[in-house]
Amino acid sequence: MKLWQDKIRRVTPYTPGEQPQKARMVKLNTNENPYPPSPLAAEAIRRFDTDRLRLYPDPAMTELVEALAAYHGVAADMVFAGVGSDDVIAMAFQTYFNSDKPILFPDVTYSFYSVWAELFGIPYARPKLDAEFRIDASTYFGENGGIIIPNPNAPTSIYEPLESIEEILRHNRDVVVIIDEAYIDFAGASALELVDTYDNLLVVRTFSKSRSMAGMRIGYAIGCAELIKALNDVKYSFNSYTLNRLSIAAGTASLKDEAYFAAQIEKIKATRAKTAARLKDMGFVFPEPAANFIFARHPQRRGEDLLAFLRERDIYVRHFKEERIREYLRITIGTEEEMEQLFCALAEYQ
Amino acid sequence: MKLWQDKIRRVTPYTPGEQPQKARMVKLNTNENPYPPSPLAAEAIRRFDTDRLRLYPDPAMTELVEALAAYHGVAADMVFAGVGSDDVIAMAFQTYFNSDKPILFPDVTYSFYSVWAELFGIPYARPKLDAEFRIDASTYFGENGGIIIPNPNAPTSIYEPLESIEEILRHNRDVVVIIDEAYIDFAGASALELVDTYDNLLVVRTFSKSRSMAGMRIGYAIGCAELIKALNDVKYSFNSYTLNRLSIAAGTASLKDEAYFAAQIEKIKATRAKTAARLKDMGFVFPEPAANFIFARHPQRRGEDLLAFLRERDIYVRHFKEERIREYLRITIGTEEEMEQLFCALAEYQ
Repeated sequence: MKLWQDKIRRVTPYTPGEQPQKARMVKLNTNENPYPPSPLAAEAIRRFDTDRLRLYPDPAMTELVEALAAYHGVAADMVFAGVGSDDVIAMAFQTYFNSDKPILFPDVTYSFYSVWAELFGIPYARPKLDAEFRIDASTYFGENGGIIIPNPNAPTSIYEPLESIEEILRHNRDVVVIIDEAYIDFAGASALELVDTYDNLLVVRTFSKSRSMAGMRIGYAIGCAELIKALNDVKYSFNSYTLNRLSIAAGTASLKDEAYFAAQIEKIKATRAKTAARLKDMGFVFPEPAANFIFARHPQRRGEDLLAFLRERDIYVRHFKEERIREYLRITIGTEEEMEQLFCALAEYQ
Repeated sequence: MKLWQDKIRRVTPYTPGEQPQKARMVKLNTNENPYPPSPLAAEAIRRFDTDRLRLYPDPAMTELVEALAAYHGVAADMVFAGVGSDDVIAMAFQTYFNSDKPILFPDVTYSFYSVWAELFGIPYARPKLDAEFRIDASTYFGENGGIIIPNPNAPTSIYEPLESIEEILRHNRDVVVIIDEAYIDFAGASALELVDTYDNLLVVRTFSKSRSMAGMRIGYAIGCAELIKALNDVKYSFNSYTLNRLSIAAGTASLKDEAYFAAQIEKIKATRAKTAARLKDMGFVFPEPAANFIFARHPQRRGEDLLAFLRERDIYVRHFKEERIREYLRITIGTEEEMEQLFCALAEYQ
């Protein structure tokens, strides 16, 4: 082993859901939206003056930040934008979580949280979800270095009522509390209504799910001006120009198409309800889904067997090896046709 | 002061060159390319199937990585891509510079290097450039935790012959040496021809300057497969999906237009030669420029005065406050017309 090699940071990288490239596959494994982005976003890209690409983007992403502020009815200095919510949350970990006390997040949740904590050398503890995968607020009342909770949670798809989120905030005024709302548009009330009350609350959102723009990489965060300034200072120290000109233009345009946005979400919710009913008929059990996916297991089936059976038929769903959830499949809500193919396959399963 | 506030990382953010938005300004302050990107890149954007934006990009950016590998005649596992070379170099600092010995870079260089070192808590030392702003290779022979040198250097625009780079590599086999070649296409031989000999060499490039795509945010690095794997592992831990679908498509297309690429560079070099001659006639002094900018001072003028005078005329150039270079202006090579406007203004200066 050469000397330069032992100064290399060794990490166990997060494994993203596989991105198979088959033409006729049914891809229900990465919680992507089955419908295209707003035609206004597509138009913004086609009409974009590509000669301008020779110039750096606006480092403050003013156009997008102001559109987001207007959309959510907050001040522009309360909005931060980044390259997907992964970029936003990773920056937030580096910015806010510099305590020697452990940060807290659920034992069953988005697997990137522990990856970032390890990457940045942040100690962490994982309060156990209860038997129904619900968050017990009281498990977040102890001393900690910060908190991050996704609502709805992934991969469970469970939405915690705002009262329970606020109870956690009420007991944690001395640390930054991040609520990751990647899937909130498919669920209920947002913690955004609490940012004026709790200056230590950061709410993170993404364009990847409800806005059908995973391929554009746009995430953002809303919190009090001081939280956002600290995040921007770290961002400017790291990489001043993150969102490219087309992401800024397309993201801004997408915010101006509320009717389209609302319609897509209603379609996905309707398909989710139908899918839930049929899965129940087939004997699957799962928590009430609040996101664009269902986290289900079948009492008589092994999760791995179902995964393999479906994959043979070019139907891709997500499976996790962790002991507590190894019998579950995370099934993204696709189009009606895609769910039909899923059920045809499941019907064949002996 | 609230308790959560004192765990916030406090940084002095890098200040990017100002991005004034005036319509008729002459913008020579951020080393952007005055010519549009390849028509093939523009075409790739206009023709892009925006319905695909609902899907995550390929996390391995295979299409772009393979195009870069083919372009440079290296294996695909020797190429890493990121959101501009700033993203690539910041990742490289986190990946390779984990020693308690100081990393080394010139006392006069790209100001982001010290910002990253401070952000990531990496000790650093800054060997002095000589009186002509040249690198003295021997000042990099001492014990260190790694080295980063831009070639050509910024803001000096000086290109160091490959022999001097290789001499530094020969004396530093135990640490990772990064050569930042953001401006190499305007200069001379690239350190790329040394990557097979030195497995601790990482060469970083960008699409922002010679490819006129600063607005797309595409940077990359080439080194031995093990260096690139370590960088990818950290990237996958940080943010699996960085380059968006349009950047991957447009970047790939731009690599297929060598004739256009070469012609733009020749135009800029020709304008650089004319600009240098005229600045000399006006009494400016500057090192031989090898990048798309000239680093010049006038013996009878204060740098700040020239900056202010030009700005009043909506001509923007870059000025740095550091003692050693405060009398200099960094002037980007624009179009012939833009340089004409610069000289008209300078002619008026009393």
